[in-house]
Amino acid sequence: MPFSAPARPARLRRAGLLLATALLPLLGLAQTTPAIQRLNPTNWWVGMKHHDVQLLVYGPQAGTLTYTVDYPGVKLVKANTVENPNYVFLDLSISPTAKPGQVKLVGKKGAQTVTRNWELRARDNASKGQGVTQADLIYLAMPDRFANGDPSNDKFSDMADPNADRANPFYRHGGDLQGAAQHLDYLKDLGVTAVWFTPVIENDQPLTDEGGNMRSAYHGYGFTDHYNVDRRLGGNAAYKAFVEKAHAQGLKVVQDAVYNHVGINHWTVKDMPMKSWLHQWPSYTNTSYRQQPIIDPYAAQIDRKITQDGWFVPFLPDLNQQNPYVANFLIQHALWTVENFGVDAWRIDTYMYNDLPFMNRCNAALLTEYPKIHIFGESAVSNAIDQAYFVRNKVAFPFKSNQPGGLDFVLEGGMLAGLKEVGGKDATGWDNSVQRMYQALEQDAVYEDPTRLVTFLDNHDHNRFLSEMGEDVAKYKIGLTWLLTTRGIPSMYYGTEILMKNFKNPSDAEVRRDFPGGFAGDKENKFTAAGRSAAENDAFNFVKTLAQYRKSHPTLHAGKLMQYLPENGIYVYFRYDQAGTVLVATNATDKPAALPTARFTERMSGFTKARNVLTGETLADLKTLQLPAKTAVVLELQK
Amino acid sequence: MPFSAPARPARLRRAGLLLATALLPLLGLAQTTPAIQRLNPTNWWVGMKHHDVQLLVYGPQAGTLTYTVDYPGVKLVKANTVENPNYVFLDLSISPTAKPGQVKLVGKKGAQTVTRNWELRARDNASKGQGVTQADLIYLAMPDRFANGDPSNDKFSDMADPNADRANPFYRHGGDLQGAAQHLDYLKDLGVTAVWFTPVIENDQPLTDEGGNMRSAYHGYGFTDHYNVDRRLGGNAAYKAFVEKAHAQGLKVVQDAVYNHVGINHWTVKDMPMKSWLHQWPSYTNTSYRQQPIIDPYAAQIDRKITQDGWFVPFLPDLNQQNPYVANFLIQHALWTVENFGVDAWRIDTYMYNDLPFMNRCNAALLTEYPKIHIFGESAVSNAIDQAYFVRNKVAFPFKSNQPGGLDFVLEGGMLAGLKEVGGKDATGWDNSVQRMYQALEQDAVYEDPTRLVTFLDNHDHNRFLSEMGEDVAKYKIGLTWLLTTRGIPSMYYGTEILMKNFKNPSDAEVRRDFPGGFAGDKENKFTAAGRSAAENDAFNFVKTLAQYRKSHPTLHAGKLMQYLPENGIYVYFRYDQAGTVLVATNATDKPAALPTARFTERMSGFTKARNVLTGETLADLKTLQLPAKTAVVLELQK
Repeated sequence: MPFSAPARPARLRRAGLLLATALLPLLGLAQTTPAIQRLNPTNWWVGMKHHDVQLLVYGPQAGTLTYTVDYPGVKLVKANTVENPNYVFLDLSISPTAKPGQVKLVGKKGAQTVTRNWELRARDNASKGQGVTQADLIYLAMPDRFANGDPSNDKFSDMADPNADRANPFYRHGGDLQGAAQHLDYLKDLGVTAVWFTPVIENDQPLTDEGGNMRSAYHGYGFTDHYNVDRRLGGNAAYKAFVEKAHAQGLKVVQDAVYNHVGINHWTVKDMPMKSWLHQWPSYTNTSYRQQPIIDPYAAQIDRKITQDGWFVPFLPDLNQQNPYVANFLIQHALWTVENFGVDAWRIDTYMYNDLPFMNRCNAALLTEYPKIHIFGESAVSNAIDQAYFVRNKVAFPFKSNQPGGLDFVLEGGMLAGLKEVGGKDATGWDNSVQRMYQALEQDAVYEDPTRLVTFLDNHDHNRFLSEMGEDVAKYKIGLTWLLTTRGIPSMYYGTEILMKNFKNPSDAEVRRDFPGGFAGDKENKFTAAGRSAAENDAFNFVKTLAQYRKSHPTLHAGKLMQYLPENGIYVYFRYDQAGTVLVATNATDKPAALPTARFTERMSGFTKARNVLTGETLADLKTLQLPAKTAVVLELQK
Repeated sequence: MPFSAPARPARLRRAGLLLATALLPLLGLAQTTPAIQRLNPTNWWVGMKHHDVQLLVYGPQAGTLTYTVDYPGVKLVKANTVENPNYVFLDLSISPTAKPGQVKLVGKKGAQTVTRNWELRARDNASKGQGVTQADLIYLAMPDRFANGDPSNDKFSDMADPNADRANPFYRHGGDLQGAAQHLDYLKDLGVTAVWFTPVIENDQPLTDEGGNMRSAYHGYGFTDHYNVDRRLGGNAAYKAFVEKAHAQGLKVVQDAVYNHVGINHWTVKDMPMKSWLHQWPSYTNTSYRQQPIIDPYAAQIDRKITQDGWFVPFLPDLNQQNPYVANFLIQHALWTVENFGVDAWRIDTYMYNDLPFMNRCNAALLTEYPKIHIFGESAVSNAIDQAYFVRNKVAFPFKSNQPGGLDFVLEGGMLAGLKEVGGKDATGWDNSVQRMYQALEQDAVYEDPTRLVTFLDNHDHNRFLSEMGEDVAKYKIGLTWLLTTRGIPSMYYGTEILMKNFKNPSDAEVRRDFPGGFAGDKENKFTAAGRSAAENDAFNFVKTLAQYRKSHPTLHAGKLMQYLPENGIYVYFRYDQAGTVLVATNATDKPAALPTARFTERMSGFTKARNVLTGETLADLKTLQLPAKTAVVLELQK
């Protein structure tokens, strides 16, 4: 989830909405004929471990009805009315013996009867929740900016933002899931094994706030209806089709989940169940964007509250996950999503701003239902202690996170800062250059399992990696080599492989440019070798060579890591297991180096030759390695 | 322990010494008449918990004798002979019922009989091992450079370095323990409660190596005889007198211990008990000075070995503490020192280079005998994970340290880097200035008890604090305010209070200049107000005001810390307990600021006024605090 400078409060209709909610009964609106307009979750399945479902029922005066359920094996345990009479939360218990079918809800009030069917489905056998591991390479794409497969869904006049305009970086550009599905071959060829889209759920948000400030939602982080994929991306059907096609090709799908907030246009915000649905403040209060008050043993309560209950930005209302109705709503939606679409892993936005006991419950619910699913959240911190706090760790913090993975911002920081010093005056510095990569990993002792962290060099919120590298392709190649050979689950931002560049200047949109060739009328098509320049093909083939090697070599999936203290700007590490040993030697200096290998006996003993994975060359003698300047060499050792 | 650049191997006599040791029996030297020249420990006490003592017996062919012990309650359990026939290690068991007296050792070989008495003393009731806590302020002084109380002991012609010359920064200057004892009033007046000297043990080291390179030992880190305090400092008697005088005035004494290495002239190095007494390498191998291989879960064995078994510098041989004779020698010396001199706390040099299981045993032995003693080692690292590794911590590292404290290099780093940004363009930066102090403390969650860390702004191995601050007294005062009011046990390097300055350029000696007034003929005497300039008196009085306030206010000894997220370059924290609340507000900007206090209600509720500890002023209204530019304000809140 992006943020730039702390946002200023906007003039919102929020206060008005809350008032309307509170005043509804007083205004005599109870005279309205009750009706049921929405049921969330929209359906459930028989045979789920999560079989006690809290069904949100919404409609005019829906909360004033008295409900009964008539369906074998489904029991209405409790009907919970709340402040807003348009809501009722029905606690349903679904027996293991219940059969698929239409559960009939009956709501009565005096002479009035409202009925509505709610479907209990049979679970399918499609693969879902497969998880991602070190065997994978995740490709992060922003569907609006990747490829447009269906120009008919680019915009809808009945949506809050009815625009689409590729010429404007802040507008929707028309990319969609069908477009992405058309390029699965491209991704597979590159060596990608999993696709992570920025959120696909409906963001029916206005393009600007009431003050006219741009509030783009093309990135997807402001949900307005959890149970619908955005129509402009193709809706639920297109998402389901995408997952099925990806699975058919052996690719996995990562869902980008957002629990912390919703869009200002979310239907539960426009007519709130109760005041405590959101975190409410006497006047608009932004989060500080600071993790420290969460972890700090000396923190003040107010600082913790501002971090976690302050709003991310004024147009993304902050959900109160300590409200059990909110918690149930979110947890059930997570389970529904995996079951319905068959996604394999779960990336969680703005992890650290969530209520963390809630996150533990939510993670546990997903892992109980889908034991192999992987969960990795975004906690943009810069040191390993803070990062460890939000994942399963080896520190006796007062709070124990159960999150199996996390995005590895610490390693990203170490790699980028280190790579910037490659070839320069600090290439051999005491704490510089390759030492930064080495030192970032050295602190892994705080994590329960650092191999489950998802590694990256950039993402949709950061400057593009190539630009961070000053467009130095040598540094770019070292970075990608590290990403694809060190511990962790690598992820790569779309376009990195074709040298897409840019800083977040003047806006985030600069690092979210359209993938050339993904849109009708594009002059260039970088999805094909013919459409790429020589330099782009060099980069593409570099990534492909490493990614395909990684894909087919289990030593890089499950092998241990051993790293040696960098000396003289040269950093050597190994991935190794019974099946093989891969040596990665990085020369960070601007001069070729001859590296005697006697020091590495613990890992090299018994090996006599090697294959250079990137060049295909054979090395017949391992006593001394010839390392070109500013290069990472990958050697598969051989007996 | 200082080090600058990794040292180059010197041409040492070491190899020759080892050869001589190994060849002694072959050369027929066994014909020498056996004799006992040394016993270590030089005595022991009855009633110690450590009552199984391994007595090192040394002398020509001392290891070829057959020993008996004739003393009630003392049993010779085993006589351990080793490679070198000049040594035997006698395992003695001292019964709780043994009485003080002279234990008679009898060594026989054929017709020859050698006898030697070894004293068992009664323990005295003098206070010892009192520990240091947050109630203390430690003053670190280098005795050779602090004050010369006895010019007759400045140099000795029979020592390896027979020189003394105050004009030469690398030579001994003549300071001694008697001189320090003469200035206890000065220290007490300043608010100091504990004195820590750089090591006082004999350093009978040559001034240069064989190549003529300067190898100063005035700092004391190269022991040559554990059981003698250096004659140039006044010897054992002067040290004992110093401790007694300090205790009489209510001051404690911290011993600076060195386990990792000894001086090249240590008598056990000149004639080694066995080859494994030291860490031996095929060719000279320096430590990498890197802690990472110790902590890194991915480290290679050779990197760990180089860090810990590599030599600190060529003239400080690295002891092999995995050799049980070495371990016993060191542990017994530690206990002997506390018992004999009555010291109160134990600072450990180059902690991280020691064998860490040995350190745990050694720490446990001291804590068993002296439960209140405090132990804090030097591990010069820059992040909290690495620092935590070497002290009692909350991380499930594979190795668990039992060290109760440690020198807080991480907080020093945060304070100094932060203070440098005070008043500048980064004073309000996202991660700069006061944020660095805040963020350093925020990571305290990894320590079992961060209040037992010893805090500092500089020391004998660092640039002097004032110089690091660019001689900006405003920054100097903020730093000292932090040091004396935040969590931890503060320590201050001698001369800081009188604005002594300098960088370690061209050498460490620049930050170890003589205290003006401590030496005969000094033109200035900074021990007296009259001898100090106005600026020096301002600094002295600033430190004194805070230190005396700290000394008399238990809230700063045992009160909790609460810190608020800095905003706009302003950092506010509290120390608080049932007895009181102290607020410290730092304005890091170059402009005065008015700080509303509503945000601090959690700590300020109920307080209506305050006393400014530094100015004595009373604040009648706490709603808004007026904070001068570049200033830390200390307020004692009042109801």
